[in-house]
Amino acid sequence: MKLWQKEGVSTAEQIERFTVGRDREMDLSLAPFDVQGNLAHARMLETIGLLTADELTQLTTELKAIYAQIGQGDFTIEDGVEDVHSQVELMLTRKLGDVGKKIHSGRSRNDQVLVDLKLFTRDRLWQVAQAVERVFNQLVKRSEQHKDDLLPGYTHLQIAMPSSFGLWFGAYAEALSDDMLTLQTAYRLANRNPLGSGAGYGSSFPLNRTLTTELLGFEGMHVNVVYAQMSRGKTEQTALTALAAVAATVGRMAMDICLYNSQNFGFLILPDALTTGSSIMPHKKNPDVAELLRAKSNRLKAMPMEVTLVLSNLPSGYHRDMQLLKEILMPAFDEILDCLDITEFMLEHLEVKPNLLADSKYDLLFSVERVNELVLQGVPFREAYRIVGKEIGDHTYQRPAQLNHSHEGSIGNLGTELIVAQMKQALDGFGANRAEEAIQQLLN
Amino acid sequence: MKLWQKEGVSTAEQIERFTVGRDREMDLSLAPFDVQGNLAHARMLETIGLLTADELTQLTTELKAIYAQIGQGDFTIEDGVEDVHSQVELMLTRKLGDVGKKIHSGRSRNDQVLVDLKLFTRDRLWQVAQAVERVFNQLVKRSEQHKDDLLPGYTHLQIAMPSSFGLWFGAYAEALSDDMLTLQTAYRLANRNPLGSGAGYGSSFPLNRTLTTELLGFEGMHVNVVYAQMSRGKTEQTALTALAAVAATVGRMAMDICLYNSQNFGFLILPDALTTGSSIMPHKKNPDVAELLRAKSNRLKAMPMEVTLVLSNLPSGYHRDMQLLKEILMPAFDEILDCLDITEFMLEHLEVKPNLLADSKYDLLFSVERVNELVLQGVPFREAYRIVGKEIGDHTYQRPAQLNHSHEGSIGNLGTELIVAQMKQALDGFGANRAEEAIQQLLN
Amino acid sequence: MKLWQKEGVSTAEQIERFTVGRDREMDLSLAPFDVQGNLAHARMLETIGLLTADELTQLTTELKAIYAQIGQGDFTIEDGVEDVHSQVELMLTRKLGDVGKKIHSGRSRNDQVLVDLKLFTRDRLWQVAQAVERVFNQLVKRSEQHKDDLLPGYTHLQIAMPSSFGLWFGAYAEALSDDMLTLQTAYRLANRNPLGSGAGYGSSFPLNRTLTTELLGFEGMHVNVVYAQMSRGKTEQTALTALAAVAATVGRMAMDICLYNSQNFGFLILPDALTTGSSIMPHKKNPDVAELLRAKSNRLKAMPMEVTLVLSNLPSGYHRDMQLLKEILMPAFDEILDCLDITEFMLEHLEVKPNLLADSKYDLLFSVERVNELVLQGVPFREAYRIVGKEIGDHTYQRPAQLNHSHEGSIGNLGTELIVAQMKQALDGFGANRAEEAIQQLLN
Amino acid sequence: MKLWQKEGVSTAEQIERFTVGRDREMDLSLAPFDVQGNLAHARMLETIGLLTADELTQLTTELKAIYAQIGQGDFTIEDGVEDVHSQVELMLTRKLGDVGKKIHSGRSRNDQVLVDLKLFTRDRLWQVAQAVERVFNQLVKRSEQHKDDLLPGYTHLQIAMPSSFGLWFGAYAEALSDDMLTLQTAYRLANRNPLGSGAGYGSSFPLNRTLTTELLGFEGMHVNVVYAQMSRGKTEQTALTALAAVAATVGRMAMDICLYNSQNFGFLILPDALTTGSSIMPHKKNPDVAELLRAKSNRLKAMPMEVTLVLSNLPSGYHRDMQLLKEILMPAFDEILDCLDITEFMLEHLEVKPNLLADSKYDLLFSVERVNELVLQGVPFREAYRIVGKEIGDHTYQRPAQLNHSHEGSIGNLGTELIVAQMKQALDGFGANRAEEAIQQLLN
Repeated sequence: MKLWQKEGVSTAEQIERFTVGRDREMDLSLAPFDVQGNLAHARMLETIGLLTADELTQLTTELKAIYAQIGQGDFTIEDGVEDVHSQVELMLTRKLGDVGKKIHSGRSRNDQVLVDLKLFTRDRLWQVAQAVERVFNQLVKRSEQHKDDLLPGYTHLQIAMPSSFGLWFGAYAEALSDDMLTLQTAYRLANRNPLGSGAGYGSSFPLNRTLTTELLGFEGMHVNVVYAQMSRGKTEQTALTALAAVAATVGRMAMDICLYNSQNFGFLILPDALTTGSSIMPHKKNPDVAELLRAKSNRLKAMPMEVTLVLSNLPSGYHRDMQLLKEILMPAFDEILDCLDITEFMLEHLEVKPNLLADSKYDLLFSVERVNELVLQGVPFREAYRIVGKEIGDHTYQRPAQLNHSHEGSIGNLGTELIVAQMKQALDGFGANRAEEAIQQLLN
Repeated sequence: MKLWQKEGVSTAEQIERFTVGRDREMDLSLAPFDVQGNLAHARMLETIGLLTADELTQLTTELKAIYAQIGQGDFTIEDGVEDVHSQVELMLTRKLGDVGKKIHSGRSRNDQVLVDLKLFTRDRLWQVAQAVERVFNQLVKRSEQHKDDLLPGYTHLQIAMPSSFGLWFGAYAEALSDDMLTLQTAYRLANRNPLGSGAGYGSSFPLNRTLTTELLGFEGMHVNVVYAQMSRGKTEQTALTALAAVAATVGRMAMDICLYNSQNFGFLILPDALTTGSSIMPHKKNPDVAELLRAKSNRLKAMPMEVTLVLSNLPSGYHRDMQLLKEILMPAFDEILDCLDITEFMLEHLEVKPNLLADSKYDLLFSVERVNELVLQGVPFREAYRIVGKEIGDHTYQRPAQLNHSHEGSIGNLGTELIVAQMKQALDGFGANRAEEAIQQLLN
Repeated sequence: MKLWQKEGVSTAEQIERFTVGRDREMDLSLAPFDVQGNLAHARMLETIGLLTADELTQLTTELKAIYAQIGQGDFTIEDGVEDVHSQVELMLTRKLGDVGKKIHSGRSRNDQVLVDLKLFTRDRLWQVAQAVERVFNQLVKRSEQHKDDLLPGYTHLQIAMPSSFGLWFGAYAEALSDDMLTLQTAYRLANRNPLGSGAGYGSSFPLNRTLTTELLGFEGMHVNVVYAQMSRGKTEQTALTALAAVAATVGRMAMDICLYNSQNFGFLILPDALTTGSSIMPHKKNPDVAELLRAKSNRLKAMPMEVTLVLSNLPSGYHRDMQLLKEILMPAFDEILDCLDITEFMLEHLEVKPNLLADSKYDLLFSVERVNELVLQGVPFREAYRIVGKEIGDHTYQRPAQLNHSHEGSIGNLGTELIVAQMKQALDGFGANRAEEAIQQLLN
Repeated sequence: MKLWQKEGVSTAEQIERFTVGRDREMDLSLAPFDVQGNLAHARMLETIGLLTADELTQLTTELKAIYAQIGQGDFTIEDGVEDVHSQVELMLTRKLGDVGKKIHSGRSRNDQVLVDLKLFTRDRLWQVAQAVERVFNQLVKRSEQHKDDLLPGYTHLQIAMPSSFGLWFGAYAEALSDDMLTLQTAYRLANRNPLGSGAGYGSSFPLNRTLTTELLGFEGMHVNVVYAQMSRGKTEQTALTALAAVAATVGRMAMDICLYNSQNFGFLILPDALTTGSSIMPHKKNPDVAELLRAKSNRLKAMPMEVTLVLSNLPSGYHRDMQLLKEILMPAFDEILDCLDITEFMLEHLEVKPNLLADSKYDLLFSVERVNELVLQGVPFREAYRIVGKEIGDHTYQRPAQLNHSHEGSIGNLGTELIVAQMKQALDGFGANRAEEAIQQLLN
C-alpha cells in the first residue's frame, strides 16, 4: 500500500526493489524522529484551526504510544508499506480513522523526510561529539601521564628532534578540539527547521513555522522554502565532512600506531586483545584493529565526495536522487561511532615503552639543542648551525645533557589546560541542551 | 574458532565485530571460488608430493560435495568461524581429519583470499559484460527502429542542429562498446593467478604455479610474489573503474531521460511502471526510476576513489586495510547489475514522441543546413555564415526543406554495423571461454 | 643560494625544478605575510633577550621597507633563492649583516611557512567572505524586486507547484548564509598561531608564543607544537572545503541558469556580454559564462579530495609532501574570487521573463491549491487528493484563481529580513576586525 | 578577433579572461596536431569536390610551413585571437585569402578541438608509455643485480618472512606491466577519429570520414556523431585514469623508499643529489625528492575525479564545461613525465644496503621456513605451526640455515623473463607504429 498508488497501475517487483532499495531498513532509525515531527506538526495544525483540540489530543496520545513502541524495539515497517512516514500515518489511521488522515495537511512527504533527517542528523552529530569528547579525555589523560616519556620526533620520516608521548597524545587531543568546531558547524546546519516547506514551494495553509521551530528545539528555521529543499544534500555533505575530519585525525593516529608498533620502531605495545595472529607465521601479533581503524577512517573520508557526485549539476528542486543520500549518511554515523569506541579502548590499553632515547642511534635528535647552546653563548644562528654541522661531520659532536623546552605547548609545558578550554568552548557552542529540552517537553 | 587463535588470549566481542565487520556476509559470495581454488591447489600439491593420490581423491570428492551444497544454497559460515576459508577447511577436517589439515600447505590465507577475489572478480566482470551487451542490443534495436524520428540536437542546452532518436540511442550503444574495452582490461587484470605467493613472499615448497594457472583457466600468473600481493587493490581499483565507466554512460542517459521527460521537453514517455506519484500533487508522474539510475550511477563513480583512499601511501606488503576493499567491491557488482537490468527494461518500454521538429520553435535548428546550401552554391563558408546570421536577424530566414546527412555515423547513415562490430571485437578480447572451460573441467 | 646547501654537494637542475616546482611563483603571494610574521617574531625575540632594542629597531625599519616594496609590486625572489623566506632573510642580511642572521633564532622554516600560510589563508578567506556578501546582496535585491514574478516550480524536473523569482533568488541568498558558517569555521581554524612550534617539536629558547599570538591578531594559538605542525593540511582542507561549499551553491545556480536559458524553458535572458556564438551555427547565443561558472565550481569541489589524497596515511611529523598543498590551495582562492565576481555581474544583468505562468501548459502547477481549497471546505486531505486526481483524469480540473501563500518563507512572505539577519550573524562571527587591527598596529 | 564575434556586441575584458582562461596557453601544445588535422581534412575536402586540386596544394604548402614554424618554436597565438584553431585559420587566410576560409567547410570548432585532443592525447600517452618502459628497464636491471640481497619482508608493517631486493624491484616492474594495459586501453580510446562529427550532429556535406581516419592513422572512427561528441570527457577520463594507475605504482614505491631510508629501517641510501638539508637541524639529509614524487603521484590520482565532477549529470551534447578539461588533462602529462624521469634517475642511483638479515632482530622472519621443515618431515601443517609457535614462546626457536624458494616468482626464481614478456606484449598492443607512419606520410 503506497500513498501515491493510483488505480490500474501495477508496479513490477524488481522496480519496487530498485526504487525502495534500503529505504525501509534506513527508515527504522528515523522512526522516533518522525514521531517527534508529527507531534510538533499536529500541535501547530491545532493552533491554525486545521485540527480541533480533541483531534489533537487523540493524535498526541496515539503518537506517544507509537513512540513508546519504538523505544521498546517493537516498531516495524510492515510489508507493502513504503516508508516510515506511511507506516506511522497508517497506524494513526487504523486507530483514529479520518483524524489520522488529517495530519498530512499542510505538509508534503518531502518536508517530512527533511525534518526527520534534520532531527536524526542533529541527534547523531551530538552523539559523535560526545564520543569524540571521550576519546579526547583519554588522550589528555595519557598525555599528562607520559609527559616525561621522551620519543624521537621525526620530520621527513628522518629522526629530527626530541619529542615526548606527552606531546604526541596531546597533539591528537588538540586536533580533536579543532575537529569539534567542524562538527559544531555541521550541527548548526542540521539544527534548522525545514517543516512547512512542503515539496519545496510551501503551502497555502497559514502554517506557523515559528511555532514548530520552537517545539522541535531548532536554533532557527530554513526560511526560504525553496532553500529548505535545497538544504537536502548540503546538510548531509556538511555532516559527512565533519565525520571525515574526525576520521582523518583518528586515522592518522592509527597510522602512527601501526608504525610505532613495528619492530623497526618499537615505541608502543598493543594489548593482546587488539592484535591477531597469522595463518602461516607463528610469531605474528598483527595490529589489525589499528589497521582497520585506518582503513575505515579512509573510507569515511570518501563519503563527502559521494554526496557531491550525487548532487553535482542537478538543477534546483527535489529529485529522487536525494533519497539515496540516506544510504550514504546513515551508516557513516554507525561507522564513526564504532571507530571512536575502539579508539578509546585502544588508547586506554596501549603501553608506552620507556627510555627510548637512551639508544645512541637517537643522539642526533639533540643537534638543534647544541646549536641553541652556541646561540645562547652569542654565536649568530646561521654560524652556530654551520659549526654543529662540522662537529657532526668530524664526529666531535656531543649530545647535550639536558632539554630546556619551556614555552607554551612544548615538551616541558604541554599547555593541557589551554587545550581543554578550547574543547569546552567548542562543545558549548553546539547549544545541544536547548534541543534536548525541547524534545523532552514535546514528549511529556 | 579462529585459525590463528592462541591459548590464553581472549578477544572481546566488540573487537571481533569491528575486525570481522561484514566479512562473513561478503564471504558467502566467495564460497564457490574458494572451492575452485582449493581443488586446483590440492591437485598441484599432489604433483609435488605434498599429498598422496589417495588424499587428493578424498579432498576432491569432499570439495565437490561442498561445491554442490553451495550451489543448492545450503552453505553457511558457522557462528564463531571467521571466514569462508576457515569454514571450508573446517568442513574438510571434520570429514577427513588430518588430510583436511594438509590442504593449507604451501599456502597462506593471503593468497587464498587473493585467488578467491580474482576468480570472483573475473566471474562478475563477465556477468557485467553480458548485461552491458544486453543493454547494447536494446539500444541498437531502438536506434534502427527510430532512425527517422527526428529530435532537436542541443549544444550548450541551446537548440543547435537536427538530431534523431536513431543517433541518440546509437550514441549510447557506441559508448558502451568503448566501455567494454575498459571492462576487458579489468577482466585481464583479474585473470592472473596469485596462488603460490603465500603471504606475499612465496613458499619454500616447490610449488608448481604454472599448473594452478592452467587449472584455474587464468590467462597468466602474477609472477613476482611481492607483486601478486600488491595487485590487491589494483585489481579492485581497475574493476571498479570499469564499472564506473559503464555507470557514467548509463547515468548520463538517465539524465537525458529525466530531461526529455520533463514537460518542457516532452520528447519521451515513460511507461507507468517506471513512474511514481506524489503524496500531495495529484497530477504527478515522476521518473523516479531514471533518477535513481542516475543517482546510483553517480555513487558507483565514487567507488574507485574509496579504494584509492584506503591504499594511498601504504607501503608495500599486506595490511589488514585491504580486507575492507571487499565491502567496496562486492556490493558494487550487485548495484551495477541491478542498474543494467533496469536500464534494459526502461529502454524496451520507453515511448518516443514522433514529429517533434514540426514545431516551429525548432526552425533555427536548420540554420547550418541553410549555410551549407549557400556553400554548395559556391559561397565561402565564413561568408555564408554571415549571410544566414543576417537572414535570422532580418526574419527572412527560411528553414530548408530537406536534410542531406549521408556520411558515416550521421542521421542518414547510422553505421550500426560498424558499432556492432566494435562491440563484438571488444567482447572477443576477454577470452572468457577459456576461463569457463577450465573451471568446468576442474569441477567434473 | 639555498640555506641548507652544504659544501661539495651539487644539485642537478632537473631535481631543482622538480623539488622547487611552482613554489617561487606561489611564494610571491606569501611575501607580505612573511614580513608580518618576521615583525612579530623580532619583537618577541627582543622581549626574551635574543635581540637588543637597537637590533629590533634596525630589523623593524628594514622589514617595513620590504613591506612597502611588496606593496609597490617591486619585490621579487631572485634567481637561485629558494623561497620567500630565504629572500627576505637575504635582504635583511645584505643590509644589516649579522643582525639579519639573528632573526631566524627560535624558529624553523617549518613554522615560518606555517605562520605565513595561516595569515595568507585568513586574509583570503575574509576576501572570499566579502565577495560572497556582495553576491548575497545582489541576490537579496533581485529577490525583493521579483517577488511577484511567478515561476514554475519543479520536482523531479516535472512541473510541480507555483514558485517565484523572489523565492528562487532568495533561496540562493539563504544558501550563501549557510555557506558563510562553513567559511567562518575555516577562518577560525586559520586564525591560530603556529609560530614557535619550530619544526614541530618546539624550541629550547624561552619563546613567548602568547605575545606573537597577540601581535598577529590571532584568535588563539595552536598550543601543542606537534599539533601545530599537524594543522598543516587540516587548515588547507578546511579552507578548501569552505570554498567548495560556496562553489556548490554558485555552481547549482549556474546549472539553473543554463537550463532556464534554454529555449525549452525560456525563463531568463542573459545579457549579450555573457553569451557567445558558434563557429558554424549563426543563430546561437550560448551561455558560456554560466557553463564555465558551473565547470569551475565543479572543479573547486574536487580540491578538498586532492588535499585528502596527499595527506592520507602519512604518519605525523612534517613531510615535504605538504609543500605541494600550496599549489592546490593558493590558486583555488583566485578561482573562487573570479567566480564570485562573474556571478555578481551576471546576477545584476540577467533579465527575468514576466508572466510565465500565463501559459496553460503550467495549469497543473495549481493542483495542490485545488486540493487545499477542498481541505479548507472540510474534506480530509487524502480524500481531497483523490478527488482532484479524478478531476485531472476527467479533464474537469480548473486552476484556482488565486495563490494564498502567507507563511514564513513562502511566495507571499519571503522573510528576507530573517535571511539578512542570518548572514549578518555569520559574518560577525569571524571576528575579522580584531585581526585587521592587530596587523595595522604591527605595520605602523 | 573572434570567429563568432558579431557586430555591435562588445565583451568586457574580465569576461574574456574568465571564458578564455588558460586556453591560449594550453592551445600552444595543440598546434602541431591542429595542423595535422587540417592537412587531413583538406585532403578529404578535395576528394568530395569542396576544394579544387590547386586549392589543396596551396593549403597543404601553407600548412606545412606553419608546421615547420611550430617545430622551430616560432608559432604564437596572437593577442586577440581566441584559440589555436582561429590562429591557424587566420594565418591561412592572410596568405591565401578566400581559399583559407574554405577549410572550415564541413567542420565545426567542436570536432576540430576533438580531433586535436585525440591526436595530442594519443601522442602523449605513447610518450608516457615509453617513459614507463624506461623505468621498467631500470627496475628489471636492479632486480637482477640485487637478486641475492635479502630484505625483511613485512606484512602489517610487522616483520614477516624473508624477501629480497630482487623481489622488491621486480614487483614494481611487474606492476608497471599491468599499468601498461591500462595505458593501452586509454591509447585505444584516444585513437579514434571524431572528425566529421561537426558540433555533434554531423554535416550535410558528403564527408568521407573513412579517409580522414586513414590519413590520421586512427585505429578506427567514433562512428556515431553524437557519440563522437560524447567521447569528450571519456577520453580525458580514461587517459587520466591510466596516468593515475602509473602514479599509484610510482607513489607507492616512493613511500617504500621514504620508509626504507628512515634511520629506523636503514635499507637504502639515497644519493646526495636527491636529499636536502634542514634550516635548523644540521644533521638532516631529507628524502624530499621521494616525498614530492609521492605527493605528486597522489595529486595525479585525484585527476580522474575532477573530470568526473565536471561531467556528472550533464545531459548529452556539447557544453562549454568541457573546455575546462584541457586544463586538467594537459598539465597532468607534464607532471607524470617529470615524475617518471625522476624515478628513473632515482632508481639508477639509489644504493642498497647489503647483509640486512644478519641482524638477529630479523630471526623470526624464518619462522615459516621452520614450519615448512617440519611439514616436509611429515608433520601436518597446522600441527607444525603450533610446534613452532611453542618454540618461539619457549625461546628454543632456531632460525633455519637456508632458504629454499624455487617456485616461479620467488626469491630463488624471479621469473624476470616472464615479466619482460608481459611488458613487451602490452606495448605491442598499442599499435603505435601505424599512427606514427600515417602522420609521417601526411607531413611529407
